[in-house]
Amino acid sequence: MEAYFDNSATTKVLDSVRDIVVKTMTEDYGNPAAKHRKGMEAEQYIRDARKIIADTMKVQEKEILFTSGGSESNNMALIGTAWANQRAGKHIISTSIEHPSVYNPLGVMEELGFEVTILPVDHDGHISLKELEEAIRPDTILVSTMYVNNEVGAVEPVEEISKIIKAKNPSTLYHVDAIQAYGKYVIRPKKQGIDLLSVSSHKIHGPKGVGFLYIRNGVKIKPLIYGGGQQAGLRSGTENVPGVAGFGAAAKEMYTNHAEKIQKLIELKDYMTDRLGEIEGTVINSKKGEASAPQIVSVSFEGVRSEVLLHALEDKGVYVSSGSACSSNHPGISGTLKGIGVAQKLLDSTIRMSFGMFNTKEEVDYTIDVLKELVPVLRRYQRG
Amino acid sequence: MEAYFDNSATTKVLDSVRDIVVKTMTEDYGNPAAKHRKGMEAEQYIRDARKIIADTMKVQEKEILFTSGGSESNNMALIGTAWANQRAGKHIISTSIEHPSVYNPLGVMEELGFEVTILPVDHDGHISLKELEEAIRPDTILVSTMYVNNEVGAVEPVEEISKIIKAKNPSTLYHVDAIQAYGKYVIRPKKQGIDLLSVSSHKIHGPKGVGFLYIRNGVKIKPLIYGGGQQAGLRSGTENVPGVAGFGAAAKEMYTNHAEKIQKLIELKDYMTDRLGEIEGTVINSKKGEASAPQIVSVSFEGVRSEVLLHALEDKGVYVSSGSACSSNHPGISGTLKGIGVAQKLLDSTIRMSFGMFNTKEEVDYTIDVLKELVPVLRRYQRG
Repeated sequence: MEAYFDNSATTKVLDSVRDIVVKTMTEDYGNPAAKHRKGMEAEQYIRDARKIIADTMKVQEKEILFTSGGSESNNMALIGTAWANQRAGKHIISTSIEHPSVYNPLGVMEELGFEVTILPVDHDGHISLKELEEAIRPDTILVSTMYVNNEVGAVEPVEEISKIIKAKNPSTLYHVDAIQAYGKYVIRPKKQGIDLLSVSSHKIHGPKGVGFLYIRNGVKIKPLIYGGGQQAGLRSGTENVPGVAGFGAAAKEMYTNHAEKIQKLIELKDYMTDRLGEIEGTVINSKKGEASAPQIVSVSFEGVRSEVLLHALEDKGVYVSSGSACSSNHPGISGTLKGIGVAQKLLDSTIRMSFGMFNTKEEVDYTIDVLKELVPVLRRYQRG
Repeated sequence: MEAYFDNSATTKVLDSVRDIVVKTMTEDYGNPAAKHRKGMEAEQYIRDARKIIADTMKVQEKEILFTSGGSESNNMALIGTAWANQRAGKHIISTSIEHPSVYNPLGVMEELGFEVTILPVDHDGHISLKELEEAIRPDTILVSTMYVNNEVGAVEPVEEISKIIKAKNPSTLYHVDAIQAYGKYVIRPKKQGIDLLSVSSHKIHGPKGVGFLYIRNGVKIKPLIYGGGQQAGLRSGTENVPGVAGFGAAAKEMYTNHAEKIQKLIELKDYMTDRLGEIEGTVINSKKGEASAPQIVSVSFEGVRSEVLLHALEDKGVYVSSGSACSSNHPGISGTLKGIGVAQKLLDSTIRMSFGMFNTKEEVDYTIDVLKELVPVLRRYQRG
């Protein structure tokens, strides 16, 4: 049996995604900028995907900018708004549990003369709203937080965060990294007070190499990539028609019977969480039900090194992640786990299991059987 | 019959490309940064593509940086080297017939305090080597030229250009936009003295949304996109495995029996050029044989508006381009055509036909038949 529980790293594409990618590579392969019919047809795929995605969040189509993925979206949100708004101020606020595609651009902006305040998180992975309020200044141009943390599934109270930002400084922009949230949550940027929102396609069973940045109409932002003037001049380069069309197909499927799909994910998560309790010496760092993201279980195994367990599991066809797989730095110990107060001795004994549309209860049962067999052996081995 | 002669705008993917894209989306769909087997397998696709591409140019694998396409490659080559080398100087040289993804980033760098010299071209579309030599200064950090012009197929003497640059200022970098050249020419950056070279996948029957930047080992350059540290920290973001693998498959096929493939393109080009001569009042702006790029015919039809002809042709299933399709600005009149001295009255009467691996001699015959029927009618109509 095979159990792929690393869906927060990346996913297998849906059949509908594969079909539209093949069609746009082999039949409707025109360049959207071409003036002939093949160009118009290609452009229509972009329009259709844009409409599907805008509709999932009840925003305007022109507020969706396609990018090459979540990292580009986050970089553009931070660097693009910083450059465009620097006359209003040079202060940016973020948190201690952001993805590297947020905190590394922030580091670059610091070198270029911007000032960055990093807020810590509590044991639930949440920033303090009081600390946030105190940190916002007249020259704060941007606040950037995650929606769902990629390591433990903590969900930030984005609507409350926005209210505090806008009450203290109405001109401060709010960017949300929703890369682990889109597809899992009904997101309403207008209602939730979100000005910019980053999303990646390959986390929701769409193709790799494509993402979007929601940019509220009126937000001042500069491009990262200049050229032929595609997408209203904000992101030049021939549109990745197969990628964008595939992304649209994935978004459409994820938001069809959405509540049912999420219910299924929560049931898998809760079932895995419960059954992990059958194994002695496990600590669950994520939460059950709606208290954390539906797709993520973070679990620590006392006395077992996570990387050893990861490889033992892959030999049995079970794929999980130790820490975050979104970084090729392979940092030994996760900042998020420390941030939420995971005991020092468990930091290096923690794995993430993340669920997708293809997972089943049988895979959970199989994984628990495998863990019951492996964990005691690994503990003996590592003590010995 | 259908005749797609817009291959310099974009191409249909090869069967081998489609197959590997589907396989990496549906079976080997791992994240290359994941530590388990599915991650390693995905990483192997990236390595394989990198090796294929490096081998086509006899460069090192680590000198190939995958990007989201030609525009990102050009932007990174210009903006990334400008930022990284600004202490050595702030002067950049380019030409009057560059693609917008070169001249627009240059405009941005000018706003940021860099000085840009633009060299004109002669009737063959070539810069003057003497003017180039005179323009290079001690503070010139970068020269950027095309390899093959996208509108008329003019081929720049890159090796000679490099010799002049390096003789005058050995620390000046030379960037070549090879987006219309890769796949058509045997490119040897080491021998030709090229420091940076931009390439796009979808111009050579590979997937859209992927490209590479060749960066000679030792060249100082900064990233455009920061994050998880993929590709030695130079281009963060989960690698687009299907895109990169498909790009590798396309590169492999283009450089297998390469001379034969190019011979076939030249024959098509020359056959089209000859047969266009059968139509009264045509002026060919490209050259036959090896005097210009193998895939591009630029032709002006006296007394016919190119956009009208383009739409009349599409009704017959023939797809061509008026000016460059790489820009969604739809500029009325091409800077390149003016640059090479096309008569004023023909500027707006010029179409580009560009050939790919799927084109045939029969398609040329069909197109000539269609043109012989359409052109006299359109001339009467436009005079009337």
